Amino acid sequence: MKKLLSIFTFLLIALVSFAQNDDSIFIRRIADEILMNGKAYDDLHFLTKQIGGRLAGSPQMPKAEQWGLKTLQSLNPDKAWLQQCMVPHWVRGGKDEANASFSGKKKVLDVIALGNSKGSGKSGVTGNVIEVKSFDELEAKKDQLKNKIVFYNYPFNQKFIRTFEAYGDAVRYRGAGASRAAKYGAKGVIIRSMSESTDNYPHTGSLRYDSTYPLIPAVAIGLRDADWLSNQLKSGNVSVNMKTYGYFLPDTIGHNVIAELTGSEFPNEYITIGGHLDSWDPGEGAHDDGTGIVQTIEVLRVLKTLGYKPKHSIRFVLFANEENGSKGGQKYAEEGTAKGEKHIFALETDAGGFTPRGFGFTGPEQQFKKIQSWQPLLAPYGASEIERGGGGTDIGPLSRAQNTPLGEYLPDSQRYFDIHHTRNDVFENVNKRELELGAVNIAALIYLIDKYGLE
Amino acid sequence: MKKLLSIFTFLLIALVSFAQNDDSIFIRRIADEILMNGKAYDDLHFLTKQIGGRLAGSPQMPKAEQWGLKTLQSLNPDKAWLQQCMVPHWVRGGKDEANASFSGKKKVLDVIALGNSKGSGKSGVTGNVIEVKSFDELEAKKDQLKNKIVFYNYPFNQKFIRTFEAYGDAVRYRGAGASRAAKYGAKGVIIRSMSESTDNYPHTGSLRYDSTYPLIPAVAIGLRDADWLSNQLKSGNVSVNMKTYGYFLPDTIGHNVIAELTGSEFPNEYITIGGHLDSWDPGEGAHDDGTGIVQTIEVLRVLKTLGYKPKHSIRFVLFANEENGSKGGQKYAEEGTAKGEKHIFALETDAGGFTPRGFGFTGPEQQFKKIQSWQPLLAPYGASEIERGGGGTDIGPLSRAQNTPLGEYLPDSQRYFDIHHTRNDVFENVNKRELELGAVNIAALIYLIDKYGLE
Repeated sequence: MKKLLSIFTFLLIALVSFAQNDDSIFIRRIADEILMNGKAYDDLHFLTKQIGGRLAGSPQMPKAEQWGLKTLQSLNPDKAWLQQCMVPHWVRGGKDEANASFSGKKKVLDVIALGNSKGSGKSGVTGNVIEVKSFDELEAKKDQLKNKIVFYNYPFNQKFIRTFEAYGDAVRYRGAGASRAAKYGAKGVIIRSMSESTDNYPHTGSLRYDSTYPLIPAVAIGLRDADWLSNQLKSGNVSVNMKTYGYFLPDTIGHNVIAELTGSEFPNEYITIGGHLDSWDPGEGAHDDGTGIVQTIEVLRVLKTLGYKPKHSIRFVLFANEENGSKGGQKYAEEGTAKGEKHIFALETDAGGFTPRGFGFTGPEQQFKKIQSWQPLLAPYGASEIERGGGGTDIGPLSRAQNTPLGEYLPDSQRYFDIHHTRNDVFENVNKRELELGAVNIAALIYLIDKYGLE
Repeated sequence: MKKLLSIFTFLLIALVSFAQNDDSIFIRRIADEILMNGKAYDDLHFLTKQIGGRLAGSPQMPKAEQWGLKTLQSLNPDKAWLQQCMVPHWVRGGKDEANASFSGKKKVLDVIALGNSKGSGKSGVTGNVIEVKSFDELEAKKDQLKNKIVFYNYPFNQKFIRTFEAYGDAVRYRGAGASRAAKYGAKGVIIRSMSESTDNYPHTGSLRYDSTYPLIPAVAIGLRDADWLSNQLKSGNVSVNMKTYGYFLPDTIGHNVIAELTGSEFPNEYITIGGHLDSWDPGEGAHDDGTGIVQTIEVLRVLKTLGYKPKHSIRFVLFANEENGSKGGQKYAEEGTAKGEKHIFALETDAGGFTPRGFGFTGPEQQFKKIQSWQPLLAPYGASEIERGGGGTDIGPLSRAQNTPLGEYLPDSQRYFDIHHTRNDVFENVNKRELELGAVNIAALIYLIDKYGLE
């Protein structure tokens, strides 16, 4: 019996080693195919240079949807379709401006209106600037805010090693700053950009008004101008005239763009991988999230090219309207859940097309351990850090609707907030190999989850 | 006794945890200081923009040495000095050119002469181009090479995940290609640049002539022009006229720039950390190796700022002449060994100022295990990959002279060969935080090695 057991153990070890070896060979084929014949970089070139920035409701939105559908269809998935959803339609409406007056002099500030903000119109709003470094300071100065322009100068905390943590820490001023200042009679707000970059590009992004208070205009300011303004205020009054033109049109029709490889064993169990097709308007939406889009497409391409037949149904989703409404992700979860689809895993790639570092996972401990056990298969391609936490705006609704475990692709974060939501988020700032290595690691993880399941 | 033992074990664990905690606190202080008050980026700005490219023997070389000495001295090390060494003095001599003629048409090729190569002079050399993809193909075509210009079109192998492996694989054509072609009567060589970039910058770097054969001119060509040339050759003859102007002047005096913190317990045991001060001439020597230089200086700065008193003597070395002679590294090992200095560890940072990935180590297994045990202290700052192998041109002589264990800082390699030895190796391509995080990890490792030793 003991002998039989040890033979059995031997066979088991041999089998596991064989499987690991098999996986490592298949993942090597994924890497070779993507690094030698990859299409992600060319796809990104088209999306950024021929279509460009593509906010929900913009003329570029339907162009991007049609391009996405055509590109997915050209790879011969089992299905490909547009999934309709209503999306908000915010329009910037003009060129945002801010002019500072101080000691008889003038200075043009590099600003951009926050997404979803209401414009001041042509005459603009003018007021003396009052600087606050935090909401605590705002509350302390609440009696001085009437008719002022509040300048939130909360710095990105550089001590966080991962820049997304600094973003998470600072972004509340962009989100809630306008209404919190309006509550005390402020006429407008200027927000220090959520960035640690060395340049002066202002970074846009959504705000959320509290409709209890007046909807005052709100702009982000570049870091050099923010530092200048802060210094200038030390030596005297600065008055600013801000002009912004944002407004909402009625909600309009947008689409998630979806392709599917139908599973051979578990066709009604779904693995989703996706990024978002929309982007802010000042740049080309290259890293945010053109790279996630073309990586999603590239994963489909490589699985098809290598003749991989998945056990589960794999969905490749180019989500609509992540930036200022999240209607695409909501629609996808809603419709899938209504149809009784069982979503066993969803992965989002929306943290830039930079060099791979790893994956985050939100779900049961046992499943996390399983993913961690694949670390030696991914590490040679850069995704060596498998860690707890992570998900994303577009796949969050799946987790809430049916407790789907979530994954997040984690590229290196150091350069992301140099370009995020600025006119500098352009194709030229994406490195071909970094982009491709992201697709390699994502394809490898999707392959492993499909092959072995997560249970 | 058992109880005593278990108390002892408990105390030991408590002590180790306390030490680890202590270390983690000190490393956090290193990181905070560098990320909040770092000088590396400003230092790099001065070195690249005020001094620029600084090949051995160039007018920039002594300027860089004086700047390095002054900058190190300003940090109040225990000692700082220049260590003299003779360095080769190669001069580019003019603007390298290559003009292709084909089917009655002309095209200017983007080329740069290889370092140490002998110029053709004003009239240039002209010949029909013959393409070879490898030395094997060169040998097979040896009877056709007379009076030809040999075009080595060996591609950078993109399947290597770490780009330095592709470089190691391809660089033999730059090093030996000219003489191997001259052996069969070729008049000049054109080498496909060692890169996988998407642009057309040609990459220079050293060749080594075999003086048995004529010293023929040699240039590197940008990748787009290389692909064009290869395609053009499929449809007919291409003749190229190359003009280069390189020559050697007599060896001249250069210097390693050295600062020292003298050890409190083991003053005659040395830990060295360094990069190289020289650079190729077409760019500003930003990533190669300005970043290694300013990281070396930053490690001294942070240890001084935090009041760290090392047990061992720590040397901060800005090496001379790494690029085309390695005389600085040789001199440092030679003089140290002659003086009976015991070098217990040396670390080189010469792989670019990109986001940290880890460290390589060449030395005894037991020492490697010790460094590996510190991985949890470094990983939070990005250097999570502690692996076997690595060293560098400047510290290699120490290993050969006295078997010094070597370390190598390993930043992410994906972008390095986009800019290496090109006119694109400029300050603007360095990211401030990536540069600083490199300094954080290097300082942390040096601190741990100094505190615990490697035995």
